[in-house]
Amino acid sequence: MTTATVERPETKQPPEAEAKAPQPIEHISIICSKGTLDMAYPGLILANAARMSGIDATLFFTFWGLDIITDKKLDKLHVATVGNPSMHIPTMVGGLPGMESMATSMMKKEMEKLDIPPVREMLEILHDAGAKIYACRMAMDMFKLEESELIPQVNGVLSAMDFYDKSAGAQLLFI
Amino acid sequence: MTTATVERPETKQPPEAEAKAPQPIEHISIICSKGTLDMAYPGLILANAARMSGIDATLFFTFWGLDIITDKKLDKLHVATVGNPSMHIPTMVGGLPGMESMATSMMKKEMEKLDIPPVREMLEILHDAGAKIYACRMAMDMFKLEESELIPQVNGVLSAMDFYDKSAGAQLLFI
Amino acid sequence: MTTATVERPETKQPPEAEAKAPQPIEHISIICSKGTLDMAYPGLILANAARMSGIDATLFFTFWGLDIITDKKLDKLHVATVGNPSMHIPTMVGGLPGMESMATSMMKKEMEKLDIPPVREMLEILHDAGAKIYACRMAMDMFKLEESELIPQVNGVLSAMDFYDKSAGAQLLFI
Repeated sequence: MTTATVERPETKQPPEAEAKAPQPIEHISIICSKGTLDMAYPGLILANAARMSGIDATLFFTFWGLDIITDKKLDKLHVATVGNPSMHIPTMVGGLPGMESMATSMMKKEMEKLDIPPVREMLEILHDAGAKIYACRMAMDMFKLEESELIPQVNGVLSAMDFYDKSAGAQLLFI
Repeated sequence: MTTATVERPETKQPPEAEAKAPQPIEHISIICSKGTLDMAYPGLILANAARMSGIDATLFFTFWGLDIITDKKLDKLHVATVGNPSMHIPTMVGGLPGMESMATSMMKKEMEKLDIPPVREMLEILHDAGAKIYACRMAMDMFKLEESELIPQVNGVLSAMDFYDKSAGAQLLFI
Repeated sequence: MTTATVERPETKQPPEAEAKAPQPIEHISIICSKGTLDMAYPGLILANAARMSGIDATLFFTFWGLDIITDKKLDKLHVATVGNPSMHIPTMVGGLPGMESMATSMMKKEMEKLDIPPVREMLEILHDAGAKIYACRMAMDMFKLEESELIPQVNGVLSAMDFYDKSAGAQLLFI
Protein backbone atom coordinates (compact mmCIF):
# COMPACT_ATOMS: atom_id res chain seq x y z
CA MET A 1 0.00 0.00 0.00
CA THR A 2 2.84 2.35 0.83
CA THR A 3 5.70 3.13 -1.52
CA ALA A 4 8.13 3.47 1.35
CA THR A 5 8.63 -0.23 1.88
CA VAL A 6 12.20 -1.40 2.38
CA GLU A 7 12.68 -4.37 0.10
CA ARG A 8 15.37 -6.90 0.73
CA PRO A 9 17.79 -6.20 -2.09
CA GLU A 10 19.58 -9.57 -1.98
CA THR A 11 18.64 -10.41 -5.53
CA LYS A 12 20.79 -7.62 -6.93
CA GLN A 13 24.48 -8.42 -6.83
CA PRO A 14 27.14 -5.87 -5.96
CA PRO A 15 28.48 -4.21 -9.13
CA GLU A 16 31.12 -6.25 -10.94
CA ALA A 17 34.72 -5.22 -10.49
CA GLU A 18 35.08 -2.34 -12.92
CA ALA A 19 37.65 -2.43 -15.67
CA LYS A 20 39.13 0.77 -14.24
CA ALA A 21 39.94 1.17 -10.54
CA PRO A 22 37.80 3.70 -8.64
CA GLN A 23 39.24 7.20 -8.26
CA PRO A 24 41.10 7.58 -4.93
CA ILE A 25 40.04 10.51 -2.73
CA GLU A 26 42.36 13.47 -3.40
CA HIS A 27 40.81 16.22 -1.33
CA ILE A 28 38.44 16.34 1.62
CA SER A 29 36.53 19.55 2.32
CA ILE A 30 34.77 19.59 5.68
CA ILE A 31 32.13 22.07 6.81
CA CYS A 32 32.22 22.22 10.64
CA SER A 33 28.93 23.67 11.93
CA LYS A 34 28.77 22.32 15.50
CA GLY A 35 30.61 23.68 18.54
CA THR A 36 30.44 20.72 20.89
CA LEU A 37 33.63 18.86 21.80
CA ASP A 38 32.26 15.56 20.50
CA MET A 39 31.42 17.09 17.12
CA ALA A 40 34.66 19.14 16.94
CA TYR A 41 36.92 16.11 17.05
CA PRO A 42 35.45 14.17 14.09
CA GLY A 43 36.25 17.00 11.67
CA LEU A 44 39.75 17.51 13.06
CA ILE A 45 40.51 13.78 13.11
CA LEU A 46 39.19 13.25 9.57
CA ALA A 47 41.26 16.19 8.30
CA ASN A 48 44.34 14.85 10.08
CA ALA A 49 43.86 11.35 8.66
CA ALA A 50 43.50 12.92 5.22
CA ARG A 51 46.83 14.77 5.49
CA MET A 52 48.52 11.62 6.83
CA SER A 53 47.31 9.85 3.67
CA GLY A 54 48.55 12.63 1.40
CA ILE A 55 44.98 13.83 0.80
CA ASP A 56 44.34 17.60 0.69
CA ALA A 57 42.22 18.87 3.58
CA THR A 58 40.07 22.00 3.73
CA LEU A 59 38.10 22.97 6.84
CA PHE A 60 35.32 25.57 6.72
CA PHE A 61 34.02 26.64 10.15
CA THR A 62 30.52 28.08 10.24
CA PHE A 63 27.65 28.68 12.67
CA TRP A 64 28.41 27.13 16.10
CA GLY A 65 31.52 25.57 14.57
CA LEU A 66 33.21 28.98 14.72
CA ASP A 67 33.75 28.32 18.46
CA ILE A 68 36.35 25.72 17.47
CA ILE A 69 38.64 28.37 15.96
CA THR A 70 37.76 31.25 18.31
CA ASP A 71 40.72 31.84 20.58
CA LYS A 72 38.75 32.48 23.78
CA LYS A 73 36.35 29.56 23.31
CA LEU A 74 38.18 26.60 21.81
CA ASP A 75 39.71 25.39 25.08
CA LYS A 76 36.26 25.33 26.71
CA LEU A 77 34.22 23.24 24.27
CA HIS A 78 31.73 20.97 26.05
CA VAL A 79 30.14 17.60 25.43
CA ALA A 80 26.33 17.82 25.32
CA THR A 81 24.74 15.59 27.98
CA VAL A 82 21.13 16.60 27.42
CA GLY A 83 19.44 15.85 24.11
CA ASN A 84 22.02 13.14 23.50
CA PRO A 85 20.56 9.74 24.44
CA SER A 86 23.85 8.08 23.48
CA MET A 87 25.36 9.49 26.66
CA HIS A 88 23.17 7.05 28.61
CA ILE A 89 22.49 9.73 31.20
CA PRO A 90 18.79 10.22 32.03
CA THR A 91 17.60 13.60 30.75
CA MET A 92 16.66 14.94 34.20
CA VAL A 93 20.10 14.01 35.54
CA GLY A 94 21.89 15.22 32.40
CA GLY A 95 20.39 18.64 33.05
CA LEU A 96 21.83 18.94 36.55
CA PRO A 97 24.62 21.49 36.97
CA GLY A 98 28.00 19.79 36.71
CA MET A 99 27.00 16.86 34.53
CA GLU A 100 28.20 18.50 31.33
CA SER A 101 31.52 19.37 32.94
CA MET A 102 31.94 15.79 34.11
CA ALA A 103 31.21 14.31 30.68
CA THR A 104 33.55 16.84 29.08
CA SER A 105 36.33 16.08 31.51
CA MET A 106 35.89 12.32 30.98
CA MET A 107 36.07 12.69 27.21
CA LYS A 108 39.19 14.85 27.43
CA LYS A 109 40.89 12.22 29.60
CA GLU A 110 40.00 9.41 27.19
CA MET A 111 41.30 11.42 24.23
CA GLU A 112 44.54 12.09 26.11
CA LYS A 113 45.00 8.38 26.88
CA LEU A 114 44.74 7.71 23.14
CA ASP A 115 47.42 10.36 22.47
CA ILE A 116 44.87 12.55 20.71
CA PRO A 117 45.96 16.15 21.29
CA PRO A 118 43.63 18.86 22.64
CA VAL A 119 41.68 20.88 20.06
CA ARG A 120 44.14 23.78 19.97
CA GLU A 121 47.09 21.50 19.28
CA MET A 122 45.12 19.55 16.67
CA LEU A 123 44.54 22.81 14.79
CA GLU A 124 48.25 23.66 14.95
CA ILE A 125 49.17 20.19 13.67
CA LEU A 126 46.66 20.51 10.83
CA HIS A 127 47.95 23.94 9.88
CA ASP A 128 51.57 22.73 9.92
CA ALA A 129 50.57 19.75 7.78
CA GLY A 130 49.17 22.00 5.07
CA ALA A 131 45.45 21.71 5.82
CA LYS A 132 43.54 24.89 4.98
CA ILE A 133 41.44 26.45 7.75
CA TYR A 134 38.72 28.94 6.80
CA ALA A 135 36.01 30.83 8.68
CA CYS A 136 32.58 31.55 7.19
CA ARG A 137 32.08 35.26 6.49
CA MET A 138 28.33 35.20 7.07
CA ALA A 139 28.56 33.39 10.41
CA MET A 140 31.35 35.79 11.49
CA ASP A 141 28.99 38.71 10.78
CA MET A 142 26.07 36.99 12.53
CA PHE A 143 28.06 36.40 15.70
CA LYS A 144 29.84 39.80 15.38
CA LEU A 145 33.24 38.10 15.44
CA GLU A 146 36.40 39.90 14.31
CA GLU A 147 39.17 38.04 12.49
CA SER A 148 41.52 39.06 15.33
CA GLU A 149 39.47 36.86 17.69
CA LEU A 150 40.28 33.74 15.67
CA ILE A 151 43.39 31.61 16.11
CA PRO A 152 46.38 32.62 13.92
CA GLN A 153 46.23 29.33 11.99
CA VAL A 154 43.12 30.53 10.12
CA ASN A 155 43.97 30.99 6.43
CA GLY A 156 41.13 33.36 5.71
CA VAL A 157 37.47 34.29 5.94
CA LEU A 158 35.41 33.06 3.00
CA SER A 159 31.90 33.30 1.61
CA ALA A 160 30.13 30.03 0.82
CA MET A 161 30.77 30.78 -2.86
CA ASP A 162 34.52 31.09 -2.24
CA PHE A 163 34.33 27.85 -0.28
CA TYR A 164 32.98 26.04 -3.34
CA ASP A 165 35.91 27.38 -5.38
CA LYS A 166 38.39 26.11 -2.79
CA SER A 167 36.66 22.71 -2.82
CA ALA A 168 37.22 21.90 -6.49
CA GLY A 169 38.00 18.20 -6.81
CA ALA A 170 37.08 17.57 -3.17
CA GLN A 171 34.68 15.25 -1.43
CA LEU A 172 32.48 17.37 0.85
CA LEU A 173 31.36 16.55 4.37
CA PHE A 174 28.99 18.52 6.61
CA ILE A 175 29.50 17.98 10.34
CA MET B 1 50.37 0.62 22.54
CA THR B 2 47.20 1.90 20.92
CA THR B 3 46.71 2.03 17.18
CA ALA B 4 44.63 5.20 17.44
CA THR B 5 47.54 7.56 17.92
CA VAL B 6 47.43 10.81 15.96
CA GLU B 7 50.82 11.21 14.35
CA ARG B 8 52.08 14.61 13.32
CA PRO B 9 51.96 14.37 9.55
CA GLU B 10 54.45 17.20 8.87
CA THR B 11 56.88 14.95 7.07
CA LYS B 12 54.45 14.33 4.22
CA GLN B 13 54.18 17.30 1.90
CA PRO B 14 50.89 18.42 0.39
CA PRO B 15 50.41 16.82 -3.04
CA GLU B 16 52.27 18.61 -5.84
CA ALA B 17 50.24 20.84 -8.09
CA GLU B 18 48.66 18.36 -10.46
CA ALA B 19 49.20 18.65 -14.18
CA LYS B 20 45.42 18.88 -14.59
CA ALA B 21 43.31 21.33 -12.58
CA PRO B 22 40.87 19.74 -10.10
CA GLN B 23 37.29 19.32 -11.26
CA PRO B 24 35.11 22.30 -10.22
CA ILE B 25 31.92 21.46 -8.31
CA GLU B 26 29.01 21.30 -10.78
CA HIS B 27 26.14 20.14 -8.61
CA ILE B 28 25.43 20.13 -4.88
CA SER B 29 22.83 17.74 -3.51
CA ILE B 30 21.87 18.41 0.09
CA ILE B 31 19.90 16.09 2.38
CA CYS B 32 18.19 18.24 5.05
CA SER B 33 17.23 16.06 8.03
CA LYS B 34 16.98 18.58 10.87
CA GLY B 35 14.09 20.92 11.63
CA THR B 36 15.77 23.51 13.83
CA LEU B 37 16.22 27.06 12.56
CA ASP B 38 19.99 26.91 13.00
CA MET B 39 20.24 23.72 10.94
CA ALA B 40 17.69 24.89 8.33
CA TYR B 41 19.72 27.90 7.26
CA PRO B 42 23.01 26.11 6.40
CA GLY B 43 21.31 23.99 3.73
CA LEU B 44 19.40 26.94 2.27
CA ILE B 45 22.46 29.21 2.29
CA LEU B 46 24.72 26.55 0.73
CA ALA B 47 22.12 25.90 -1.99
CA ASN B 48 21.78 29.63 -2.65
CA ALA B 49 25.56 30.11 -2.85
CA ALA B 50 25.68 27.20 -5.30
CA ARG B 51 23.09 28.78 -7.62
CA MET B 52 24.88 32.14 -7.39
CA SER B 53 28.03 30.34 -8.59
CA GLY B 54 26.21 28.62 -11.44
CA ILE B 55 26.30 25.28 -9.59
CA ASP B 56 23.20 23.06 -9.75
CA ALA B 57 21.45 22.65 -6.40
CA THR B 58 19.20 19.82 -5.25
CA LEU B 59 17.58 19.78 -1.80
CA PHE B 60 16.05 16.62 -0.33
CA PHE B 61 14.05 17.16 2.86
CA THR B 62 13.64 14.15 5.13
CA PHE B 63 12.86 13.28 8.75
CA TRP B 64 12.63 16.46 10.91
CA GLY B 65 13.82 18.44 7.89
CA LEU B 66 10.34 18.10 6.40
CA ASP B 67 9.25 20.87 8.79
CA ILE B 68 11.28 23.31 6.64
CA ILE B 69 8.98 22.80 3.65
CA THR B 70 5.73 22.17 5.55
CA ASP B 71 3.53 25.22 5.08
CA LYS B 72 2.16 25.38 8.63
CA LYS B 73 5.52 24.82 10.32
CA LEU B 74 8.26 26.59 8.41
CA ASP B 75 7.59 30.05 9.88
CA LYS B 76 7.86 28.63 13.41
CA LEU B 77 11.22 26.83 13.33
CA HIS B 78 13.11 27.15 16.61
CA VAL B 79 16.72 27.29 17.71
CA ALA B 80 17.57 24.52 20.20
CA THR B 81 18.83 25.95 23.49
CA VAL B 82 19.08 22.71 25.43
CA GLY B 83 21.55 20.06 24.33
CA ASN B 84 23.50 22.72 22.49
CA PRO B 85 26.48 23.83 24.63
CA SER B 86 27.48 26.31 21.91
CA MET B 87 24.56 28.48 22.97
CA HIS B 88 26.45 29.22 26.21
CA ILE B 89 23.23 28.96 28.16
CA PRO B 90 23.40 26.67 31.22
CA THR B 91 21.27 23.58 30.66
CA MET B 92 18.90 24.24 33.58
CA VAL B 93 18.28 27.77 32.33
CA GLY B 94 18.06 26.68 28.70
CA GLY B 95 15.19 24.42 29.69
CA LEU B 96 13.11 27.22 31.17
CA PRO B 97 10.00 28.18 29.20
CA GLY B 98 10.72 31.15 26.97
CA MET B 99 14.46 30.59 26.47
CA GLU B 100 14.03 28.87 23.13
CA SER B 101 11.76 31.65 21.91
CA MET B 102 14.31 34.24 22.96
CA ALA B 103 17.21 32.52 21.19
CA THR B 104 15.03 32.03 18.11
CA SER B 105 13.99 35.66 18.06
CA MET B 106 17.61 36.80 18.49
CA MET B 107 18.79 34.63 15.61
CA LYS B 108 16.00 35.89 13.34
CA LYS B 109 16.99 39.50 14.09
CA GLU B 110 20.66 38.82 13.35
CA MET B 111 19.77 37.12 10.07
CA GLU B 112 17.59 40.08 9.11
CA LYS B 113 20.42 42.54 9.85
CA LEU B 114 22.60 40.56 7.42
CA ASP B 115 19.87 40.80 4.76
CA ILE B 116 19.32 37.05 4.94
CA PRO B 117 15.65 36.45 4.14
CA PRO B 118 13.32 34.37 6.32
CA VAL B 119 13.11 30.66 5.53
CA ARG B 120 9.95 30.95 3.38
CA GLU B 121 11.49 33.63 1.18
CA MET B 122 14.78 31.70 0.92
CA LEU B 123 12.82 28.74 -0.47
CA GLU B 124 11.07 30.99 -3.01
CA ILE B 125 14.41 32.48 -4.09
CA LEU B 126 15.92 29.03 -4.45
CA HIS B 127 12.98 27.79 -6.49
CA ASP B 128 13.11 30.85 -8.77
CA ALA B 129 16.84 30.32 -9.21
CA GLY B 130 16.34 26.79 -10.49
CA ALA B 131 17.23 24.82 -7.38
CA LYS B 132 15.26 21.57 -7.11
CA ILE B 133 13.31 20.97 -3.89
CA TYR B 134 12.20 17.42 -3.06
CA ALA B 135 10.47 15.76 -0.11
CA CYS B 136 11.31 12.24 1.06
CA ARG B 137 8.48 9.79 0.40
CA MET B 138 9.26 7.58 3.39
CA ALA B 139 9.41 10.46 5.88
CA MET B 140 6.16 11.88 4.43
CA ASP B 141 4.50 8.51 5.13
CA MET B 142 6.05 8.30 8.60
CA PHE B 143 4.74 11.73 9.60
CA LYS B 144 1.43 11.17 7.70
CA LEU B 145 2.05 14.32 5.66
CA GLU B 146 0.12 15.01 2.44
CA GLU B 147 1.77 16.72 -0.52
CA SER B 148 -0.87 19.47 -0.21
CA GLU B 149 0.61 20.42 3.18
CA LEU B 150 3.97 21.27 1.59
CA ILE B 151 4.86 24.64 0.06
CA PRO B 152 4.11 24.98 -3.67
CA GLN B 153 7.83 25.29 -4.52
CA VAL B 154 8.33 21.58 -3.89
CA ASN B 155 9.22 19.87 -7.18
CA GLY B 156 8.15 16.41 -6.09
CA VAL B 157 8.17 13.61 -3.54
CA LEU B 158 10.98 11.11 -4.08
CA SER B 159 12.24 7.82 -2.71
CA ALA B 160 15.87 7.68 -1.62
CA MET B 161 16.56 5.68 -4.80
CA ASP B 162 15.08 8.45 -6.96
CA PHE B 163 17.17 10.94 -4.99
CA TYR B 164 20.35 9.12 -6.01
CA ASP B 165 19.26 9.34 -9.65
CA LYS B 166 18.67 13.09 -9.34
CA SER B 167 22.11 13.46 -7.72
CA ALA B 168 24.18 12.15 -10.62
CA GLY B 169 27.35 14.21 -10.88
CA ALA B 170 26.66 15.93 -7.56
CA GLN B 171 28.60 16.34 -4.37
CA LEU B 172 26.37 15.14 -1.51
CA LEU B 173 25.93 16.75 1.90
CA PHE B 174 23.90 15.47 4.87
CA ILE B 175 22.71 18.17 7.25
CA MET C 1 27.51 47.36 4.08
CA THR C 2 27.83 43.68 4.88
CA THR C 3 29.40 41.16 2.56
CA ALA C 4 27.06 38.44 3.76
CA THR C 5 24.06 39.60 1.77
CA VAL C 6 22.06 36.92 0.00
CA GLU C 7 21.51 38.18 -3.54
CA ARG C 8 18.68 36.87 -5.63
CA PRO C 9 20.52 34.80 -8.19
CA GLU C 10 17.74 34.79 -10.82
CA THR C 11 19.92 36.45 -13.43
CA LYS C 12 22.18 33.45 -13.72
CA GLN C 13 20.59 30.59 -15.60
CA PRO C 14 21.00 26.96 -14.58
CA PRO C 15 23.89 25.40 -16.48
CA GLU C 16 22.97 24.25 -19.99
CA ALA C 17 22.47 20.56 -20.52
CA GLU C 18 26.04 19.32 -20.76
CA ALA C 19 27.23 17.50 -23.84
CA LYS C 20 28.05 14.53 -21.62
CA ALA C 21 25.60 13.14 -19.07
CA PRO C 22 26.61 13.60 -15.39
CA GLN C 23 28.36 10.68 -13.74
CA PRO C 24 25.88 8.42 -11.90
CA ILE C 25 26.64 7.70 -8.23
CA GLU C 26 28.53 4.39 -8.00
CA HIS C 27 29.41 4.18 -4.33
CA ILE C 28 28.08 5.81 -1.16
CA SER C 29 30.28 5.91 1.92
CA ILE C 30 28.47 6.98 5.07
CA ILE C 31 30.08 8.00 8.37
CA CYS C 32 27.54 7.34 11.16
CA SER C 33 28.48 9.37 14.25
CA LYS C 34 25.17 9.64 16.12
CA GLY C 35 23.57 7.01 18.32
CA THR C 36 19.96 8.20 18.41
CA LEU C 37 17.26 6.15 16.71
CA ASP C 38 16.24 9.05 14.48
CA MET C 39 19.81 9.53 13.26
CA ALA C 40 20.52 5.77 12.97
CA TYR C 41 17.78 5.18 10.40
CA PRO C 42 18.85 7.76 7.78
CA GLY C 43 22.24 6.08 7.32
CA LEU C 44 20.74 2.60 7.18
CA ILE C 45 17.96 3.64 4.80
CA LEU C 46 20.35 5.53 2.49
CA ALA C 47 22.69 2.53 2.40
CA ASN C 48 19.78 0.20 1.67
CA ALA C 49 18.47 2.45 -1.13
CA ALA C 50 21.98 2.49 -2.57
CA ARG C 51 22.21 -1.31 -2.68
CA MET C 52 18.71 -1.52 -4.19
CA SER C 53 19.97 0.79 -6.96
CA GLY C 54 23.11 -1.28 -7.53
CA ILE C 55 25.24 1.37 -5.83
CA ASP C 56 28.07 0.19 -3.53
CA ALA C 57 27.51 1.09 0.12
CA THR C 58 30.10 1.48 2.88
CA LEU C 59 29.15 2.35 6.46
CA PHE C 60 31.71 3.60 8.98
CA PHE C 61 30.43 3.77 12.56
CA THR C 62 32.26 6.17 14.89
CA PHE C 63 31.74 8.08 18.14
CA TRP C 64 28.14 7.66 19.41
CA GLY C 65 27.33 5.86 16.15
CA LEU C 66 29.13 2.79 17.51
CA ASP C 67 26.00 2.12 19.60
CA ILE C 68 24.22 1.17 16.35
CA ILE C 69 26.48 -1.86 15.83
CA THR C 70 27.07 -2.73 19.51
CA ASP C 71 25.16 -5.90 20.25
CA LYS C 72 23.92 -4.90 23.72
CA LYS C 73 22.86 -1.39 22.71
CA LEU C 74 21.39 -1.42 19.23
CA ASP C 75 17.94 -2.65 20.28
CA LYS C 76 17.66 0.18 22.82
CA LEU C 77 18.43 3.27 20.71
CA HIS C 78 16.31 6.27 21.73
CA VAL C 79 14.82 9.30 20.03
CA ALA C 80 16.01 12.56 21.62
CA THR C 81 13.07 14.60 22.92
CA VAL C 82 15.06 17.38 24.57
CA GLY C 83 17.21 19.66 22.46
CA ASN C 84 15.14 18.73 19.44
CA PRO C 85 12.53 21.44 18.78
CA SER C 86 11.21 19.47 15.81
CA MET C 87 9.63 17.05 18.26
CA HIS C 88 7.15 19.81 19.18
CA ILE C 89 7.42 18.83 22.83
CA PRO C 90 8.11 21.74 25.21
CA THR C 91 11.60 21.39 26.70
CA MET C 92 10.40 21.12 30.31
CA VAL C 93 7.99 18.35 29.34
CA GLY C 94 10.51 16.67 27.06
CA GLY C 95 12.79 16.32 30.05
CA LEU C 96 10.25 14.44 32.16
CA PRO C 97 11.00 10.76 32.75
CA GLY C 98 9.17 8.62 30.24
CA MET C 99 8.91 11.15 27.42
CA GLU C 100 11.90 9.77 25.56
CA SER C 101 10.56 6.24 25.86
CA MET C 102 7.20 7.38 24.52
CA ALA C 103 8.70 9.17 21.50
CA THR C 104 10.94 6.17 20.84
CA SER C 105 8.04 3.75 21.03
CA MET C 106 5.96 5.96 18.71
CA MET C 107 8.73 6.14 16.13
CA LYS C 108 9.26 2.38 16.23
CA LYS C 109 5.54 1.82 15.62
CA GLU C 110 5.49 4.21 12.67
CA MET C 111 8.55 2.54 11.15
CA GLU C 112 6.89 -0.86 11.56
CA LYS C 113 3.72 0.36 9.83
CA LEU C 114 5.87 1.38 6.86
CA ASP C 115 7.46 -2.09 6.78
CA ILE C 116 10.82 -0.63 7.79
CA PRO C 117 12.60 -3.32 9.80
CA PRO C 118 14.14 -2.72 13.24
CA VAL C 119 17.78 -1.60 13.32
CA ARG C 120 19.20 -5.10 13.88
CA GLU C 121 17.33 -6.53 10.90
CA MET C 122 18.30 -3.54 8.73
CA LEU C 123 21.95 -4.29 9.47
CA GLU C 124 21.47 -7.95 8.54
CA ILE C 125 19.74 -6.97 5.29
CA LEU C 126 22.54 -4.54 4.46
CA HIS C 127 25.20 -7.14 5.16
CA ASP C 128 23.41 -9.75 3.05
CA ALA C 129 23.09 -7.20 0.24
CA GLY C 130 26.84 -6.65 0.15
CA ALA C 131 27.09 -3.36 2.02
CA LYS C 132 30.33 -3.06 3.99
CA ILE C 133 30.05 -2.31 7.72
CA TYR C 134 33.10 -0.96 9.54
CA ALA C 135 33.80 0.29 13.07
CA CYS C 136 36.19 3.16 13.80
CA ARG C 137 39.33 1.97 15.61
CA MET C 138 39.85 5.22 17.50
CA ALA C 139 36.27 5.40 18.79
CA MET C 140 36.46 1.70 19.79
CA ASP C 141 39.54 2.51 21.89
CA MET C 142 37.92 5.62 23.35
CA PHE C 143 34.84 3.70 24.48
CA LYS C 144 36.93 0.64 25.46
CA LEU C 145 34.87 -1.56 23.16
CA GLU C 146 36.05 -5.01 22.08
CA GLU C 147 35.33 -6.33 18.59
CA SER C 148 33.49 -9.24 20.24
CA GLU C 149 30.90 -6.74 21.53
CA LEU C 150 29.92 -5.74 17.99
CA ILE C 151 27.39 -7.55 15.83
CA PRO C 152 28.80 -10.33 13.62
CA GLN C 153 27.90 -8.41 10.43
CA VAL C 154 30.80 -5.98 11.03
CA ASN C 155 33.41 -6.44 8.29
CA GLY C 156 36.26 -4.97 10.27
CA VAL C 157 37.66 -2.22 12.46
CA LEU C 158 39.36 0.56 10.49
CA SER C 159 41.37 3.71 11.07
CA ALA C 160 40.13 6.88 9.39
CA MET C 161 43.00 6.47 6.90
CA ASP C 162 41.82 2.96 5.98
CA PHE C 163 38.31 4.35 5.64
CA TYR C 164 39.50 6.79 2.98
CA ASP C 165 41.07 3.89 1.09
CA LYS C 166 37.80 1.94 1.21
CA SER C 167 35.94 5.03 -0.03
CA ALA C 168 37.74 5.41 -3.36
CA GLY C 169 35.24 6.48 -5.99
CA ALA C 170 32.55 7.09 -3.36
CA GLN C 171 30.39 10.03 -2.44
CA LEU C 172 30.85 10.67 1.29
CA LEU C 173 28.16 11.55 3.81
CA PHE C 174 28.58 12.41 7.50
CA ILE C 175 25.55 11.71 9.65
